[in-house]
Amino acid sequence: MTEKKARPIGVAVLGMGNVGTEVVRIITDNANDLEARVGAPVELRGVAVRDLSKPRGIDPSLLTDKPEELITRDDVDIVVELIGGIDPPRMLIREALQGGKSVVTANKALLADYTGELATAAAGAKVDLYFEAAVAGAIPVIRPLMQSLAGDTVTRVAGIVNGTTNFILSAMDADGSDYAETLAEAGRLGYAEADPTADVEGYDAAAKAAILASIAFHSRVTALNVYREGISKITTHDLESAKALDCTVKLLSICERIVDEDGTQRISARVYPALVPLAHPLASVNGAFNAVVVEAENAGRLMFYGQGAGGAPTASAVLGDMVMAARNKVHGGRGPLESTYASLPIAPMGDVRTRYYVSMRVADRPGVLSTVAGEFSSRNISISTVRQEGAGDDARLVVVTHRAPDSALSETVAALEKLESVLSVSSVLRLEGTND
Amino acid sequence: MTEKKARPIGVAVLGMGNVGTEVVRIITDNANDLEARVGAPVELRGVAVRDLSKPRGIDPSLLTDKPEELITRDDVDIVVELIGGIDPPRMLIREALQGGKSVVTANKALLADYTGELATAAAGAKVDLYFEAAVAGAIPVIRPLMQSLAGDTVTRVAGIVNGTTNFILSAMDADGSDYAETLAEAGRLGYAEADPTADVEGYDAAAKAAILASIAFHSRVTALNVYREGISKITTHDLESAKALDCTVKLLSICERIVDEDGTQRISARVYPALVPLAHPLASVNGAFNAVVVEAENAGRLMFYGQGAGGAPTASAVLGDMVMAARNKVHGGRGPLESTYASLPIAPMGDVRTRYYVSMRVADRPGVLSTVAGEFSSRNISISTVRQEGAGDDARLVVVTHRAPDSALSETVAALEKLESVLSVSSVLRLEGTND
Repeated sequence: MTEKKARPIGVAVLGMGNVGTEVVRIITDNANDLEARVGAPVELRGVAVRDLSKPRGIDPSLLTDKPEELITRDDVDIVVELIGGIDPPRMLIREALQGGKSVVTANKALLADYTGELATAAAGAKVDLYFEAAVAGAIPVIRPLMQSLAGDTVTRVAGIVNGTTNFILSAMDADGSDYAETLAEAGRLGYAEADPTADVEGYDAAAKAAILASIAFHSRVTALNVYREGISKITTHDLESAKALDCTVKLLSICERIVDEDGTQRISARVYPALVPLAHPLASVNGAFNAVVVEAENAGRLMFYGQGAGGAPTASAVLGDMVMAARNKVHGGRGPLESTYASLPIAPMGDVRTRYYVSMRVADRPGVLSTVAGEFSSRNISISTVRQEGAGDDARLVVVTHRAPDSALSETVAALEKLESVLSVSSVLRLEGTND
Repeated sequence: MTEKKARPIGVAVLGMGNVGTEVVRIITDNANDLEARVGAPVELRGVAVRDLSKPRGIDPSLLTDKPEELITRDDVDIVVELIGGIDPPRMLIREALQGGKSVVTANKALLADYTGELATAAAGAKVDLYFEAAVAGAIPVIRPLMQSLAGDTVTRVAGIVNGTTNFILSAMDADGSDYAETLAEAGRLGYAEADPTADVEGYDAAAKAAILASIAFHSRVTALNVYREGISKITTHDLESAKALDCTVKLLSICERIVDEDGTQRISARVYPALVPLAHPLASVNGAFNAVVVEAENAGRLMFYGQGAGGAPTASAVLGDMVMAARNKVHGGRGPLESTYASLPIAPMGDVRTRYYVSMRVADRPGVLSTVAGEFSSRNISISTVRQEGAGDDARLVVVTHRAPDSALSETVAALEKLESVLSVSSVLRLEGTND
């Protein structure tokens, strides 16, 4: 098929960090391929950077420290936002969209909270707002959910979408090192930032869960709607206990369609470290890799796996979006924007049915198991397995429950902590990826 | 985002087998969701079937045995072709496209050979031709390759895309049963058709390889360009030998960008049963599941996994395409069609560099290994491992080579067969999924 040559498509790139540098390199190196795929030449109009004095290895006349001017240029059709953070990207993207530019962004923090206002601007100007790179880097997840599964009913999305925490948990699992030293090692290797809070406390994974839940369930879910626990309290003992249960520990982003007995539907979006059975496909996703498992009524279970971060992989996703936005500029039409028609409410975490793993130090004397078990059964929680470990001062009880409302489970843990025979509840984790 | 309500989108379904039945059911059951996602009601105009007398569980006034009339109706916007085979679908799809209808099809045999003519018709009429369901059922593969990776350079696609053969090989591997009895069992369970030739001889996998290679490398690749071997000669001994080498046997569809020393690029597309190391992600894809591994210069290695066949999973992919085609009818624009600008030539199988596993019955006497090894080294082929098994009449030699041109490897096998000390070459398989 030969497409008629059209006027060039002008691209402005905002931000020249790891990803921006790769995006600029590929636009320059692969100009012929991009032109053939778009149906028109793709030309770089400018790159906005903070520090103009830093050498960038590109024609200096392309650099500017005034992004607000770059995005309003008449010869710019597409703005690629790779600055990160809420401000100034929020204002820049909104202005670009209102000015008729299509926008490609990898900004998960912004999208988690402001997709609504940005999508409204894009719809008003009939332009595209694409953000495949915002979740799971190079792995196509947004487009499959929005487009390939557009005729299906998604029931669940569960993913490992933060490379830093997966690197730390994989390393702790592999060599038995503790959290603090593994985090330090991750920092030395460039897998953790100087301030790792956004990663290790689950904020990054929660932003991605909000984006995934919004798309999967055609509703508006923001980061504040996502229940969140990080990995900073995970101990070597947790990983050992997981192994004894044929599990490993993963930080999961879970988006679930909850159907109550009366048919009412609600959304649960949550992030926490969970025990995952070794036989589950997410258990073998190690290091900085990402994977997302999508379950839909007709498609069944799908899994998407690949590199979730890094300059080149993220740039691949950005450029896929850029080519599609450029094609639409050439041929007309536009991709789907957000779809919130279902407007499902968010279920509080207490209503979500999960399974608990509870590890506690107990007094080594008869009757303790019976007392502990009584706290579960009095709240209608059925126990799946109990393991007694050690003896004397080191006696421990590890309980794994069947599925029950999270509120009942957390009440039980609170009650256990008050028992005289329970010296301390050392760890509480949820168990995911099982059918019972 | 509320979309303004537009006139209804009329859909005609051709064929009401497993997939067609599910498509009709979902269009009917999920009318509200589809309307919200498309921005207009989706209405079923008719279903073409061969036998009008068969009860179908839908309003009989929707049924017709004249597909050629259904596809020309003014109130039909989208034609979903699920008849299968080359004729009449080829003519029906072409006429539908020329008449301005967008077409969604799962017809891999047709697409493998006639995408060019169908895409030309679609481009001429400015309508969509979508076929996500043609490869790997519910698993999004076509759209990720065409759109998400549109800014990247794909280097390799390797997949398990035929459920029947994967079911047979998985069962042979799991319980040591032989090919004939496993095929019979697959037939009883509904995993193999009465005439299993298209599946077991690799024709189905080759058609899918042609489609994947065309998209991945922006070139035209037809089924005839795909080198093809089936699984009907695989023995229990092959699977045992594979195990001894920490491998399993999988029927792979491989599409590769070959870059010669002078920079010339060519395409290899091939289907054959191959040894795959157990540590490779494709090794653990069992039963009727499909998986596709895509490698691209910037994205790195991606894997897509899920149900590759079956009524509901395939219908999910069909409906995703239908929603996107319907959206384009409502909002304007259209998806990318085939892209063949790169026009890369096909490399003959003899030029492809592969690794061989050769199992032979040999005379049990000194000097045999040296004679056999001489045949490899005289053709410049380096041997990776040699295993001697059994003794006396049952003496065997199993050789695994490093990578070499396929022509040199097959010449070596021909020469081995003529050696007096080699009683018979019992099995030759390629080894894939290793880095050396």
